[in-house]
Formats: sequence, structure tokens, C-alpha cells
Amino acid sequence: MDEFQLIRRYFSEGSAARADVKLGVGDDAALLIPPPGCELVATVDSLVADVHFPIDLGSRAVGHRALAVSLSDLAAMGAEPAWALLALTLPEVDEDWLEAFSRGFLDLAREHGVALVGGNMARGPLNISVTLQGTLPAGEALTRQGAKPGDIIYVTGHPGDAAAGLKLLQAGQPDLRDVCVARFAFPDPRVAAGVALRGLASAAIDVSDGLLADLGHLLAASRVGARIEMGSLPLSERLLELHGRQKGCELALRGGDDYELCFTIPAARSTELAARSQRLACPVTRIGSIEESAGLRVMDGDREVRIAAYGYRHF
Amino acid sequence: MDEFQLIRRYFSEGSAARADVKLGVGDDAALLIPPPGCELVATVDSLVADVHFPIDLGSRAVGHRALAVSLSDLAAMGAEPAWALLALTLPEVDEDWLEAFSRGFLDLAREHGVALVGGNMARGPLNISVTLQGTLPAGEALTRQGAKPGDIIYVTGHPGDAAAGLKLLQAGQPDLRDVCVARFAFPDPRVAAGVALRGLASAAIDVSDGLLADLGHLLAASRVGARIEMGSLPLSERLLELHGRQKGCELALRGGDDYELCFTIPAARSTELAARSQRLACPVTRIGSIEESAGLRVMDGDREVRIAAYGYRHF
Repeated sequence: MDEFQLIRRYFSEGSAARADVKLGVGDDAALLIPPPGCELVATVDSLVADVHFPIDLGSRAVGHRALAVSLSDLAAMGAEPAWALLALTLPEVDEDWLEAFSRGFLDLAREHGVALVGGNMARGPLNISVTLQGTLPAGEALTRQGAKPGDIIYVTGHPGDAAAGLKLLQAGQPDLRDVCVARFAFPDPRVAAGVALRGLASAAIDVSDGLLADLGHLLAASRVGARIEMGSLPLSERLLELHGRQKGCELALRGGDDYELCFTIPAARSTELAARSQRLACPVTRIGSIEESAGLRVMDGDREVRIAAYGYRHF
Repeated sequence: MDEFQLIRRYFSEGSAARADVKLGVGDDAALLIPPPGCELVATVDSLVADVHFPIDLGSRAVGHRALAVSLSDLAAMGAEPAWALLALTLPEVDEDWLEAFSRGFLDLAREHGVALVGGNMARGPLNISVTLQGTLPAGEALTRQGAKPGDIIYVTGHPGDAAAGLKLLQAGQPDLRDVCVARFAFPDPRVAAGVALRGLASAAIDVSDGLLADLGHLLAASRVGARIEMGSLPLSERLLELHGRQKGCELALRGGDDYELCFTIPAARSTELAARSQRLACPVTRIGSIEESAGLRVMDGDREVRIAAYGYRHF
């Protein structure tokens, strides 16, 4: 089967049908109709076997993660996802692998209204690269800039769970009923939360390389510092059960693969957040505050905790 | 150096500056402002070492090719290129390699007014995936559909040169002053030709997997057949010198990596093409005609030539 037949067989159907896709997979390029008055939000992410996921992670989870990672980037901008392009490099045609991969990818695409509009397949070491675009009303994007001293810092969900799940997977315990394993294998990007934060959050970022590392990027872009209260971290029951409070906090602060949102809100508007966050499927927890003086301070009560390296480094 | 520093160092400057890029590399995603009333054209392509180029091809050429391949897809749609995203997977940080790669990529980006708006770097076997978007006035896209019996078939440039260049490279003769080597290493995508064909070509495709293979896709999409006159193929002097007419024709018909355009024009409008093609930097040659009966016939005078497999297969 050649590239075109493979793409047609596994990817030409199953993603969301969208009226703004004039021409999808099958020509030299896709033809898309942007809504009037919108801005586009575009991101690209790659997954490499053994680097971004264990080589034996089931391919349905790999397909899900490949799209989830990009959905999380769009969520951090407050965008509504629309169109994806998939570049897939495979060592060989393994139809079982492809069938489950495409199911994981396309199920999540449909859930978020994403149409797969372009693809490329090539032979080589396993590599998955997803480009995702979304739209939002002009001027309403959330960015990493804009956090001000006095703003309150929040995080969605339960950071650290995915890192704990990866440890279970690596220890040969791939039970998807375990909330931590499920959070690593099938992350649930916070797209609805991102949209709900438009016009309210002063800055936002998605947490993929570890909470401290990514909050660090937000602080750098906003030219501010911050204080995090370790006692406020929303550790899940399962994380505490697996690792206890000390190690749990470390995983929450430094573990990767959370795909949660970290964002800031002016203190005076925190009641608005409370009202909006009741409509979301994920918890939102206040974990600290923005300060004028540069740097990121992690407090355990009155005591400042010494933090070594921040998070995952790609090289 | 981490991912962010590498991207900043090699890719944050040097591509085209565009007023429609509100936020480029450096946040969770790029923010783009589509021109009013436009349609978007989007494509993704991957390059894998030893599959899509010899592993020892200089990295400036690899960077150029990585973008040229996608520019060629946009050219085939008649689009004007605008924004690129680059996903780069590298086995290790080799700053000399990166410096030359980024130069090849960014020089071509500037030449075509393309802004690099997003990037991802990861560690793993060398893999380069480029997503490129362009714009065109609504309704003016060229597609593979629309060729009608009686239409005349044209091709730009000199197909076969790139395949001959690859043979020279593989034989250890990487002299860029050789037009064939240069055409393989630094293909010149036919963006201006694509734009000039808007409103005139009935169908178009870019030639990347071989003229017969890609024309075959156009015929299938248009539900027509075609006849190609082997004597009309625009073989370059260098191709004839290297391989003679017989082998030269085979390379022109079946060799890959041309990145030329193949397109069809209603016979009654061929004089309009002549006027427009004088403004282009590349030759445009009539090579055959569309016929009602399915299939692709290659004629050597009155005799039909038997053609084996069409072109490059990805799997």
C-alpha cells in the first residue's frame, strides 16, 4: 500500500466535519476558510519514541497524546481548535499499530471539533509531528505576557499525576484504570478552560515540561517574579498514596507531561474566576502569587524551599 | 543549550517580517491575522535522512529543501506563501549543522516572504517536518480536479535534472556548479508560476514523485486520461549530456524531486498562457494533452511506449 492509500484508509475519515474546510486531505494542500474577523493560533509539536513516550506505550495512547499536546498549546492561548496536519514517519507499515493510532488521534479530534486536513507519511524512525490551528476573536488571545505583581497564580487539575503515571508505566504497570497512568497515556487538554479564561486571565501557559519550568517562562515573558505555596499544590489522592507529600510535591513542581494550564488573574477579579470555573470539568486551584522581584520562590509555610533544576530540558 | 535557546539562537530572526504575524516564535502558539476575504492553503511535509536526501547532503541544502518542498505544494495551488512552522528532531546539538541548516531554510523563507512563526525541537533520529501556509483570494485556488478532454498539458522547467543530480551526488560528485546537482540540492519552487496560473489553469499539481506518477494523480482526481509526447519532454542539455535521450526521458518521466509544476490549460486559452509565461523565470513546455479515455499513454511518435511502475512509492 502506498502513502496515499494509507492516508486514505486510516485518516481520510473520522475527524470532525467542518464547513470551513473547502478541501481536505488529497490535493497538494488543504483549502481552509478562516472565519471573518478572527485571528489564527498555530502550533507544532513532535513526539519521538523513547523520548516523549515509552516505546511500548499502546499506539492508541500515542495517537491521542500526539494531538493532545497541541490542543494544550491552543488551550493556553484561549483558542478554539479547528484544523490539524499530521506528519507521520514510520519504520514499516504495521496496520494494527496504524489502526489504533488513528483511532486515538481521530477520537480526540472529533471530541474537540478538529478536522484533519493534511497529512504526510514517510518511512524512517518513528516520529509524529502535529500542526494544529485554532481561531479566536481578534484581540482576545491569552499570552505569557501580562502577569502583574499582585496577580494570583492558578493551576488546573492535578499536576504530578502524569509523572507518577509514567513511573508506573516504566515499572510495567500499564493499568489504565489508575488515574495517574490514564493521565499520562490519555491527557485531557484544558481547551474549555482556556476559552473560559479569555478576557479574564492576565497571562497563561500550558504545563508540559513541569510546573516550575513553565511558570518560569511565563514570569520571564511578563518580567515579574512569583511565590508558590507548596502547601497549596493540588496533589491528587492517588499521587499522595503512591509517593507521599514530599515526593508528590516534587513531582507536581518538576514532573512533566501534565498538560494543565497555569495562569494568572488580577486579585480583584478572583470572584469572576470562581463563577466561571464552576462550569469547567476540571478543578482550578490557587497556588501562589506574582511578585515584583524576579525569580520563583517556593514556600513551605514561612520557609523557602531550595529548588534545583526546574524541569525537563529537551537537549 | 535547551530547546528554547536553540530556537531563539538559530530561528527567531532571519525569516521574513510580516505585518500579519502578531506573535511569532516564543509563546505557546503563534498568533496570525488572515487577510480579509482570503482562503488559507496549508500543507505539511517531512524529510527523513537517507530516505529523502543522502545523509551527507550539506545541511544548508537540507534546510533549503525542507522549505522548498512545501513551497512547491503551495505553488501547485496558486497560493502566496506566508507562514511556516518547523519541527526539527536532531540526534544531538551540532551547532555547525544547525547554523547552515537555518541559513538554507531562512534564506529561502525571506526570498518568498515567509515568516517562521513556530518551531519545535526534539532529540531523536534526524527528522524535519515543515508546515507551510499561504493565502489566495477566495475561489481562486488551483486543484488537481478540473482537467477536461482537449486541455493541453504543460510542465515547468526541466524534469529529470534533479534525478540526474541525485545520481551525481550518490556517485560522490557534489559540485553545485553542475545544474543537475544544484537542481537537486537547491530546488527552486515555482511559486510565481503558480500565482500566474490562477484563473487560467484547469488543474495543477507539483511534480515531486515523478512526472508520470504525479500527472497520474491529477488524471485520477479529474477523472480523465492523457497522452504524453516523449519527443516534447524539455530535457536539459546537461541531462542529455549525462544520460542521452532514452535514459534522459526515463528520468524526466519517472525520476523524483523535480518540484516543477504540471498543469492543464483549455486549448482555446493557450495564447494567454504564452503571454503570462513570458513574465516567468522558468520555461513552460507543452508535453501532451488530456483525453477522455482513462489511463496515461506515453507516445514516441506514433508508437506507444510501455511504462513500468510510475514513480517513487513511499512504502
